[in-house]
Amino acid sequence: MPRFAVSPVAHEAVADALTQLRERSPLVQCLTNIVVANFTANALLAAGASPAMVDNPDEAAAFARLAGGVLVNLGTPYPDTARAMASAASSAHAAGVPWVLDPVAAGVLGWRTGIARELLAGQHPAIIRGNASEIIALAGGAGGRGVDSLVGAEQAVDAAVALATQHATVVAVSGEVDVLTDSRRIVRLANGHPLLTRITGAGCALGALMAAFAAVVPDPLLAAAAATTLLNVAAERAAAQTAGPGSFAVALIDQLHALPPQALADQLRQP
Amino acid sequence: MPRFAVSPVAHEAVADALTQLRERSPLVQCLTNIVVANFTANALLAAGASPAMVDNPDEAAAFARLAGGVLVNLGTPYPDTARAMASAASSAHAAGVPWVLDPVAAGVLGWRTGIARELLAGQHPAIIRGNASEIIALAGGAGGRGVDSLVGAEQAVDAAVALATQHATVVAVSGEVDVLTDSRRIVRLANGHPLLTRITGAGCALGALMAAFAAVVPDPLLAAAAATTLLNVAAERAAAQTAGPGSFAVALIDQLHALPPQALADQLRQP
Amino acid sequence: MPRFAVSPVAHEAVADALTQLRERSPLVQCLTNIVVANFTANALLAAGASPAMVDNPDEAAAFARLAGGVLVNLGTPYPDTARAMASAASSAHAAGVPWVLDPVAAGVLGWRTGIARELLAGQHPAIIRGNASEIIALAGGAGGRGVDSLVGAEQAVDAAVALATQHATVVAVSGEVDVLTDSRRIVRLANGHPLLTRITGAGCALGALMAAFAAVVPDPLLAAAAATTLLNVAAERAAAQTAGPGSFAVALIDQLHALPPQALADQLRQP
Repeated sequence: MPRFAVSPVAHEAVADALTQLRERSPLVQCLTNIVVANFTANALLAAGASPAMVDNPDEAAAFARLAGGVLVNLGTPYPDTARAMASAASSAHAAGVPWVLDPVAAGVLGWRTGIARELLAGQHPAIIRGNASEIIALAGGAGGRGVDSLVGAEQAVDAAVALATQHATVVAVSGEVDVLTDSRRIVRLANGHPLLTRITGAGCALGALMAAFAAVVPDPLLAAAAATTLLNVAAERAAAQTAGPGSFAVALIDQLHALPPQALADQLRQP
Repeated sequence: MPRFAVSPVAHEAVADALTQLRERSPLVQCLTNIVVANFTANALLAAGASPAMVDNPDEAAAFARLAGGVLVNLGTPYPDTARAMASAASSAHAAGVPWVLDPVAAGVLGWRTGIARELLAGQHPAIIRGNASEIIALAGGAGGRGVDSLVGAEQAVDAAVALATQHATVVAVSGEVDVLTDSRRIVRLANGHPLLTRITGAGCALGALMAAFAAVVPDPLLAAAAATTLLNVAAERAAAQTAGPGSFAVALIDQLHALPPQALADQLRQP
Repeated sequence: MPRFAVSPVAHEAVADALTQLRERSPLVQCLTNIVVANFTANALLAAGASPAMVDNPDEAAAFARLAGGVLVNLGTPYPDTARAMASAASSAHAAGVPWVLDPVAAGVLGWRTGIARELLAGQHPAIIRGNASEIIALAGGAGGRGVDSLVGAEQAVDAAVALATQHATVVAVSGEVDVLTDSRRIVRLANGHPLLTRITGAGCALGALMAAFAAVVPDPLLAAAAATTLLNVAAERAAAQTAGPGSFAVALIDQLHALPPQALADQLRQP
């Protein structure tokens, strides 16, 4: 018997969210890392959004007011870009623009864990997206190893609910089964493919897609669920065509572009 | 009746420019953004040039004197790289090395618009390449939204001619029909494919290819026209093979490598 | 009659090294350049390693103590990342973690040549990987042009042996035939394909793979030989499937993932 009520996401709501994304093509500001900036921009473009990688301290705050959604990803922070992230988050919060925090390797490395905690203080994000280790670390537990989680998403449910409560936000924990919560509702999603863990940037692109959906859907839990389903169903279709991680990454972008909204509704799996 | 005389570019001159590029393999210094650095380097290599991404303030000026052409792209400037751009442009100008300015998002964001204006002051580039919004903004008009232009290239003709006159440079405005001018002559080019707008970095790679052609062709207007035609004809061929943006980006690099010079002459379209 | 004894590498030892890499999935910290960070991470993941691009001055030293191997690549250093490289190398040396230096464009550019020399002073790397020009420059000779070598690997044998002796390290010189030495032994490897020089990042990925193998194999000369053979045999297989550099880069990642260890033993060529 689960301790938290499971709230299935409506299949048609996910499909409608993708239709909205493509019709409105939201402007998504990404403050992300040097490894995945290209893949993230291409994933957003393929899905139908309009990416803008404005991540310098002189412009980040002003641009966040113009954006539909903002992604702050801690993959490779530097002194300059960390300042840009702080001002973008603050500006987005003040302007009512939804922003997404992807606290890459939080708990493993001290400086960025501090950055993540400062970002969360008082300027609550719409969504925090991470793996189980990162979410447990942000909620006060012990961290993981590098960018990989050592524990499964299910082990992070308590931490996710606590973090969601503390910051009045949605927390999305990536794993074989993804766990998403806004502290009251819990959604579990079971799409995806192991090849997603054999390429760099899938999780980072997911955070960016969450910012894109948050720009067009009022409910951040639905936005996070729609982004997760889009990426994971696209991955299943891409993996059906390709064998290796190089061609899988290419096919994943193709599928993000080609996927009809109805396919999301049809293929969405909740365990 | 056009206000400006249209000067068709000679098909054989474009083909000869590509032959020159491949024979001489010019060294192209790129000070570009974190999103497209990889795609730009691969596009230059595929076309036959030799890219070198030297964009730190300690080396940029010295390297600009060694380069055949220099690209300055304002996609993701930071305090350090902005200093490198200023010194590279100044050094290239002093040494007679052609340099290309790609003022990404000029007009939308204040800091980089100022950087672009300072780069233009007194050290005139061989070519300024942008979309209509960026060119209008640099010429003194109102800006666009993020990295996408809200107006077509044709609406930027006056601004392009004014900017070209003011800085004694070639201005290349990307659009469905591309408009290029050196203030006296106007060239319109009609190749290309909509998928170019569904991947990140096509415009940025175009700026880099212009720097490569400017290194081997004395007339910057011809260099800009040859680069535009090369990218756009390669895109047409790539799109004929692929359906999605992921595989299109891969095929575009393949086509930049495979395209025979004569195909440029044969497929070049001027409206 | 060669002046140095040639020590053939055992084919089965190279195959075993790949088996080890895949079983142990070492954590490889990369301080590398903005051009190839994505390709490098994907190459490491495909080969079986676990990449982590921790390259800021606040975290680089602490993370180097946790890593199995560390790559320091001088492709696009900046003031902040250069500080991170110095502290990562120092920390790795102190902790006994093998680190690899890829001195991109050393000899051409003064600032980074100085950085490379400082990195080498007193905190000797397990492996230095470069082209002939870079190795000759580090050993005290004249440099090359940009990132391409103007001379063949064979012309750098004396410099490689001198550098290996001076820093008690392995030196790996990339070329049509690769030359590797630990000052006592010399290994020559003849796999590879010309398309490796038509994409960006092959050499940089090779340095990262050397750091991955150095994490699982005690002999750095064997680690360097295994990485070289893995990349070059994967390239031969990728080139057999594709014609252009775009699709070759994709197929290369696929092959790094698919290649059975025994294929390395079977296809390894020593001239």
